[in-house]
Amino acid sequence: MEPREIILKELLEASHLQGIEALLGWDQETYMPEGAGAARSEQVAYITTLMHSKLVGDPLKNALEELIDLQTGELRIMTLSDRETRQLKEIWRDYRQESLLPTEFVTNLAKHASVSQQAWVRARKDNDFAFFEPFLTEMVQLQKEKANYLGVGTTPYDSLLDQFEPDMTSEKVASLFTEIRERLVPLIQNIREVKHRVNGSVLTKEYDVDKQWDFGIAMLEGIGFNSNMGRQDRSAHPFTTSTHPTDVRTTTRLRENDLKSALLSTLHEGGHALYEQGLPAEEYGNPLGQSISLGIHESQSRMWENLVGLSPSFWRYAYPKLQAKFPDQLRNTDQEMFYAAMNRVRPSLIRVEADEATYNLHIMLRFEIEKMLINEDFPVAELPQLWNEKMEEYLGVTPPTDSEGVLQDVHWSFGAFGYFPTYTLGNLYSVQFYNQAKLDLPGLDESCARGDFSSLLGWLREHIHSVGRGRKAEELVKEITGQELSAQPFMDYLEDKYKIIYNID
Amino acid sequence: MEPREIILKELLEASHLQGIEALLGWDQETYMPEGAGAARSEQVAYITTLMHSKLVGDPLKNALEELIDLQTGELRIMTLSDRETRQLKEIWRDYRQESLLPTEFVTNLAKHASVSQQAWVRARKDNDFAFFEPFLTEMVQLQKEKANYLGVGTTPYDSLLDQFEPDMTSEKVASLFTEIRERLVPLIQNIREVKHRVNGSVLTKEYDVDKQWDFGIAMLEGIGFNSNMGRQDRSAHPFTTSTHPTDVRTTTRLRENDLKSALLSTLHEGGHALYEQGLPAEEYGNPLGQSISLGIHESQSRMWENLVGLSPSFWRYAYPKLQAKFPDQLRNTDQEMFYAAMNRVRPSLIRVEADEATYNLHIMLRFEIEKMLINEDFPVAELPQLWNEKMEEYLGVTPPTDSEGVLQDVHWSFGAFGYFPTYTLGNLYSVQFYNQAKLDLPGLDESCARGDFSSLLGWLREHIHSVGRGRKAEELVKEITGQELSAQPFMDYLEDKYKIIYNID
Repeated sequence: MEPREIILKELLEASHLQGIEALLGWDQETYMPEGAGAARSEQVAYITTLMHSKLVGDPLKNALEELIDLQTGELRIMTLSDRETRQLKEIWRDYRQESLLPTEFVTNLAKHASVSQQAWVRARKDNDFAFFEPFLTEMVQLQKEKANYLGVGTTPYDSLLDQFEPDMTSEKVASLFTEIRERLVPLIQNIREVKHRVNGSVLTKEYDVDKQWDFGIAMLEGIGFNSNMGRQDRSAHPFTTSTHPTDVRTTTRLRENDLKSALLSTLHEGGHALYEQGLPAEEYGNPLGQSISLGIHESQSRMWENLVGLSPSFWRYAYPKLQAKFPDQLRNTDQEMFYAAMNRVRPSLIRVEADEATYNLHIMLRFEIEKMLINEDFPVAELPQLWNEKMEEYLGVTPPTDSEGVLQDVHWSFGAFGYFPTYTLGNLYSVQFYNQAKLDLPGLDESCARGDFSSLLGWLREHIHSVGRGRKAEELVKEITGQELSAQPFMDYLEDKYKIIYNID
Repeated sequence: MEPREIILKELLEASHLQGIEALLGWDQETYMPEGAGAARSEQVAYITTLMHSKLVGDPLKNALEELIDLQTGELRIMTLSDRETRQLKEIWRDYRQESLLPTEFVTNLAKHASVSQQAWVRARKDNDFAFFEPFLTEMVQLQKEKANYLGVGTTPYDSLLDQFEPDMTSEKVASLFTEIRERLVPLIQNIREVKHRVNGSVLTKEYDVDKQWDFGIAMLEGIGFNSNMGRQDRSAHPFTTSTHPTDVRTTTRLRENDLKSALLSTLHEGGHALYEQGLPAEEYGNPLGQSISLGIHESQSRMWENLVGLSPSFWRYAYPKLQAKFPDQLRNTDQEMFYAAMNRVRPSLIRVEADEATYNLHIMLRFEIEKMLINEDFPVAELPQLWNEKMEEYLGVTPPTDSEGVLQDVHWSFGAFGYFPTYTLGNLYSVQFYNQAKLDLPGLDESCARGDFSSLLGWLREHIHSVGRGRKAEELVKEITGQELSAQPFMDYLEDKYKIIYNID
């Protein structure tokens, strides 16, 4: 076999393992019996180890070495097409990252991640940070080691961030966050001070969860989710995973007195799922068949959640249907009132339930804390106190319990440090992309108001989904919008939007 | 590491893969979206290949070779305990079987099994044997090759049978089947001719499936199923699988107008599940932690389904509860009538819905046909005709469609030839075991009538489940009952039972 064939065969097999690992994870969060946790940890760790061994194994390494200098990434053959060159460079990037981590470390990390995540579930349920603390301490230590092995960034934290958002730096993130904060804090202040009040109580009436489920599925399929190649289930925390582009799974969380959460999390995960379903199938098993970065992934979820799902035109289409589903609850609420309720701005405790404005403050807080944990020696035991102080500083609220505070998010438990900033980056990308889509697709608002999302989905498929990892994030945004990644369009969007909803002069 | 440590480590890793493969299979039959079939085939085939490579790989082979002669199975060290000797012999048996199969063959077989099973699903749904035919033809060919590689039996079919029921031969099966047939045919004839009729129509009224589900779960937990370490779901065809002893999954099939099927398939799968949950946890990852054979496995499912679930004492306990669940449907049916309805004997088309007597004729027919397919060159295209002729001969009924005939069972589609006889072997074992349990546990009937199954489960745990593969099937039955495997207790049981139900002199 030619070196390229060998490489693609090895990567295809690694993709089988990745898909299988995704199924193990999905099952763990949806249907796995509680008593199976320890066994599942072993299984996941074993698959992770196999995947690592495959990705740093001799067959791949030797074949790769014939085509590219493993140290510098310089090509050794000149006959490759642009597409093949890009593919090879990305394969090399993955190889380098993987090969910096010793197999034993990968196994230990995978085992601890699974155990620690299960400890978090229990700690959160019991509001018992002390129980979680040793697991998190160990995880922070492992992440420091990982950063040390990787060593790609100017700080340990930058090495971790780079895994989720390639080539992004914490300096760049900090600069964007500062820009956002400078406009966001006065905006939120303004909203608090204007006379106009938005009443959100309609969203916390009692809504039958089976009906919420049915409405959610209809919405999901309405925006283009292919249920023949995916499914939705319920889980404690909504997520999307993919065992293969033909098997993309989302979950949602339904609570009787929280309609907004069900609607928006369904659209959010739907956005992730549409991206996964739209990746180029013919490139399955190599980087060109994968998503670019978590920031770009998040741009897709936040676009469907916020720019579509929190827009007036979406509810022009969807609200009559929602009213028909819940006639009693929505009888006295007109479309405009409902739209305003969905968009109410109010500092709150829980990130995933935050409005579009305050959401980013939750991210900034996490970004600061995780830098302290990774770059400094901040003691994990003091995390609840730090969290609560920062919540007061950023959002003016103090969590009454750790479950509603430092324990609310799963990410740190399984070692995802450097992940949070990608949520706000996703917000920025989403507005830049959506502005361009509106320019490219005259009448987009009207289409949405008719419940026809095919032009938008087609645009995303063409410009983003089908690209796979054929571009870097910064190249993609430049190519699509002609601009660099920027906070300005996002902040303009927020200010314009809330000016109307809150009658701000 | 010592050779024994290496062996156990390699086998433990193979068990991780086996558990993962079980999850992939479970998911395929329960929740996997339809469009993911092709990708799932690749994933399953890859895991199967990894498992094979692990089981025949050098680490295991070299370590094993230090302890045992790989050709003859003769021990090379004399310091092992009885338990260790048994363990090593079983490991060697598995190794030998696995090492006779080339890796490429294993991969191809696994791929074809998955594809062919999916083709069967479609063919059965569409009543289209012609669509399935080429897949089955290819599978028969692969099974002949497999038998040829294994070469342990006097006929190719015997090599395949040996995989499911070690050391069993088709000659022995045929002799048991002849014995059964000689008493079964007149018994069924008798039942047909006596005046007494049993009315089964109460079982085909409309029963809400959610209530059937609730009753089934209560029954399952009532017999001792641990829901913290397992779960039940719905699937087209009930089955039980285990990703680990702490994660044992059964499925059931619910139809509004088929109460009997739901009740009995739940108890049947429950019996399999109790066995899996009762295997010795400390032996997980080596043969001593596994079940003995499919026949012994089936003895557990058939015991709970038939000897418990079709007994008068079980319904003395359960019928009042069932009546409370379905007061309208069961108002005019007393316990005795219900018990008789559940036990009605009538030749029918579908194996899994057959009564205890005619069930075995379905098995004999399959045994004869699969021997023809594997040992001779019987053309697959003529299978529907052969099937229908034999149905007429054995049961006096002719399937109106292939879906209700030759396409009804999944087994052949994924290559399980030699599997069917274990169902009837299970029936024989179950009665021999249950007779002994009754001797050992005075008052067993009365316990069951109180809904207390703990003494029976305790007996099974002690004598069968906890043994793992520490005995061969023939040793186990001898040890527990003092007798060889025999058809006589089973036939005595059936004759005694139906004499009462059908008022036979």
